[in-house]
Amino acid sequence: MAEIPYKIFLEESEMPKAWHNVRAVMKELPDPFISPATGKACTADDLRPVFCDDLIAQELNTTDEYIEIPEEIRSFYKMYRPSPLVRAYNLEKALDTPAKIYYKFEGNNTSGSHKLNSAAAQVYYAKKQGLTSLTTETGAGQWGTALSMACAFYGMDLTVYMVKVSAEQKPHRRAVIETYGGKVIPSPSDTTEVGRRILAENPGTGGSLGCAISEAMETALKTEGCRYVLGSVLNHVLVHQTIIGQETYAACKKYGIEPDMIIGCAGGGSNLGGLISPFMADYIQGKNNIDFVAVEPASCPSLTRGRYAFDFGDTGKMTPLMRMYTLGSGFMPSPNHAGGLRYHGMSPILSKLYHDGYMRAVSCEQTKVFEAAVKFARVEGTLPAPESSHAIKAAMDEAIRCRETGEAKTILFGLTGTGYFDMTAYQAYLNGTMTDYIPTDEDLERGFATLPKINF
Amino acid sequence: MAEIPYKIFLEESEMPKAWHNVRAVMKELPDPFISPATGKACTADDLRPVFCDDLIAQELNTTDEYIEIPEEIRSFYKMYRPSPLVRAYNLEKALDTPAKIYYKFEGNNTSGSHKLNSAAAQVYYAKKQGLTSLTTETGAGQWGTALSMACAFYGMDLTVYMVKVSAEQKPHRRAVIETYGGKVIPSPSDTTEVGRRILAENPGTGGSLGCAISEAMETALKTEGCRYVLGSVLNHVLVHQTIIGQETYAACKKYGIEPDMIIGCAGGGSNLGGLISPFMADYIQGKNNIDFVAVEPASCPSLTRGRYAFDFGDTGKMTPLMRMYTLGSGFMPSPNHAGGLRYHGMSPILSKLYHDGYMRAVSCEQTKVFEAAVKFARVEGTLPAPESSHAIKAAMDEAIRCRETGEAKTILFGLTGTGYFDMTAYQAYLNGTMTDYIPTDEDLERGFATLPKINF
Repeated sequence: MAEIPYKIFLEESEMPKAWHNVRAVMKELPDPFISPATGKACTADDLRPVFCDDLIAQELNTTDEYIEIPEEIRSFYKMYRPSPLVRAYNLEKALDTPAKIYYKFEGNNTSGSHKLNSAAAQVYYAKKQGLTSLTTETGAGQWGTALSMACAFYGMDLTVYMVKVSAEQKPHRRAVIETYGGKVIPSPSDTTEVGRRILAENPGTGGSLGCAISEAMETALKTEGCRYVLGSVLNHVLVHQTIIGQETYAACKKYGIEPDMIIGCAGGGSNLGGLISPFMADYIQGKNNIDFVAVEPASCPSLTRGRYAFDFGDTGKMTPLMRMYTLGSGFMPSPNHAGGLRYHGMSPILSKLYHDGYMRAVSCEQTKVFEAAVKFARVEGTLPAPESSHAIKAAMDEAIRCRETGEAKTILFGLTGTGYFDMTAYQAYLNGTMTDYIPTDEDLERGFATLPKINF
Repeated sequence: MAEIPYKIFLEESEMPKAWHNVRAVMKELPDPFISPATGKACTADDLRPVFCDDLIAQELNTTDEYIEIPEEIRSFYKMYRPSPLVRAYNLEKALDTPAKIYYKFEGNNTSGSHKLNSAAAQVYYAKKQGLTSLTTETGAGQWGTALSMACAFYGMDLTVYMVKVSAEQKPHRRAVIETYGGKVIPSPSDTTEVGRRILAENPGTGGSLGCAISEAMETALKTEGCRYVLGSVLNHVLVHQTIIGQETYAACKKYGIEPDMIIGCAGGGSNLGGLISPFMADYIQGKNNIDFVAVEPASCPSLTRGRYAFDFGDTGKMTPLMRMYTLGSGFMPSPNHAGGLRYHGMSPILSKLYHDGYMRAVSCEQTKVFEAAVKFARVEGTLPAPESSHAIKAAMDEAIRCRETGEAKTILFGLTGTGYFDMTAYQAYLNGTMTDYIPTDEDLERGFATLPKINF
């Protein structure tokens, strides 16, 4: 077996030609989406006004373990992939741990994150279908940037509803989106009915991902040749993100790396789902014994404190109902929350795997996350995104535990992106003005009260 | 010969073990530095109060073509190198050119640029000598970030004098430096004599690199165990940057790529010098016929409109005199200048090569540079730094010329960094508020009037 370099790059010829679809090997499938109008499982026809056809097919595909990546998308991927699988030699040394730490780094592209993996695919399929414009929402801005890059490349118009607090905290992120030609509207806005309603109810709101989703969907439905695209949560997004896992799986095979633990941050869940997908398929089939760990913010704890229930994907209650771990679509993270991963729900696929005991979840307070981020930056060089730093925090905790027990575990985590546009939050941490927030049970109850009153 | 992928990454085992020193093969050497006090060539002893010993040896080394990279620096390099040599297939297609375009991309690290290559080396040598702190200046902030990263890694204190206008335009760049533990002081400041003098003379000044250099040097001279480090211009910096050229040279050999033209942006000149160094050695020895092109801003045209003269490296006139192309150390770029490359002089090595006809230089106006940058970003994905975009502009012009003549030239350029922290300038370009500035002959005369009145 070859010696392990600091950074493993697959050869272009070794790059995956298919995405992975873990649903094909799951013993029980996630519940289907339910139409709130009919109370029945959504069909492709129900989804067609909102999503484009190839994505609907992927969304509903529970049988094919591998889904071919079209040549045109593989060409796009070659612009910024393969991403490196990095051996964190310096972090291991700094922690004085016998553990071997690896991270799959998705930040080496202008969007600064893994989001481009699905943006490339979604815009390609929309273009193929003859659509002319897209709408989306963005929180931290990584998804909006990624989509704007893909739209520039394929020649599509784009409107991005950007969570207002993010647009204000990150004007330069907005400028990047605009440089690639995307139009940015801070959300809630007066350009949609749902936006106007939310503004009337709560004029001072900093917005939420759920609300931005509602605005983007409304605009897509009202515009000819336009569709809505989403950067996480949905099954097809998770499938696209399996390019991360497929590359990681190939690199591990090539170098004989056998992870004992795979860790990822989880907001909507697509990056973690994408990273673990092929490894999880092996686990389900008894071929490995990996400990899969989702890490989420203590301030937005959908897996660790949420309910496994049917819920809307958006605040405006326009989406089908999805069974997932959720805090309720009306849950609003505290305004002091700076670490991303603000979504109220969780990927139905990950939710099902978690519910059935195939993986576990932990939550972290943001000051601890930033402490880990700064430590990591100083020894490994790369400045991580706050989102990604949730995974760093959990990996470091485990590596420190290994130091105490003497275990030489192999820990692999997803480093989903860079923190260049999160410097306001880093400054707050460095200045000591960052605070933590853990929702009280009453806070959570207020969110749960927004769950739909439907029993199946 | 292997098929050429979008991105060529050398294997870790193929990474260069030595820097290149083109002076060893130059037919005539650059003039030595002159001590303004004695009028004689500087010795190592003259430089010792300011620079650390190993760097002085490299600064004065005109005989060894290869200088071994210490194992510890090669380990640091492995964190973010090798950098990819990218085939710009998408740009070629967008320009409909028969030219083959390659770029060596140095932006995939948190400093966002090639600057880390020399920062790693300089901090390592300072630490080896037992020094405890460093000072430096930074303009666009890339050098300050790189040095702060290296200081965090090796455990050194750092004070960064940041050109005031940059500190104001780029608060987040400053925050990155601080995240890695560096202390940032906007320059001119009241912490030094030279800063206080410049503030008294010109209270509204936005500062300049030359002024920031003077402040950093003064502080280093007055502080025990402290030295000054510089991110460009000097010979040893150019030597460190040859890691770019050495990797590019190795990749070209591996894949049979024979550049007809190598283009780089030139501020202080170290990235361009580093990129071309091994290719230039071959050229000098008649082994290739490459057209080497430096691209500089029309607003700060040291090669194309400067004088080849002995000059100070800094506004405060504290450095030795270096013979170089210069606009005079008192030259101040226009305040509307947003594209970096603000330095009044040019690497003595590059200046000599240019003076002796081994390379040529062109200048570009900034709106044309940003036009090329946006075009590049939209087809190649990566958002380029304004500095790097000077090289993009020249490469695109040549590729368009090739379309007209039908020549299938191989054009290689250096993409030195990313533009994440230049969004204010990108916005100005997109809003149409960016203007160009070309110094009048009278403007230049005011700069030349600050040249030392010394004849040799």
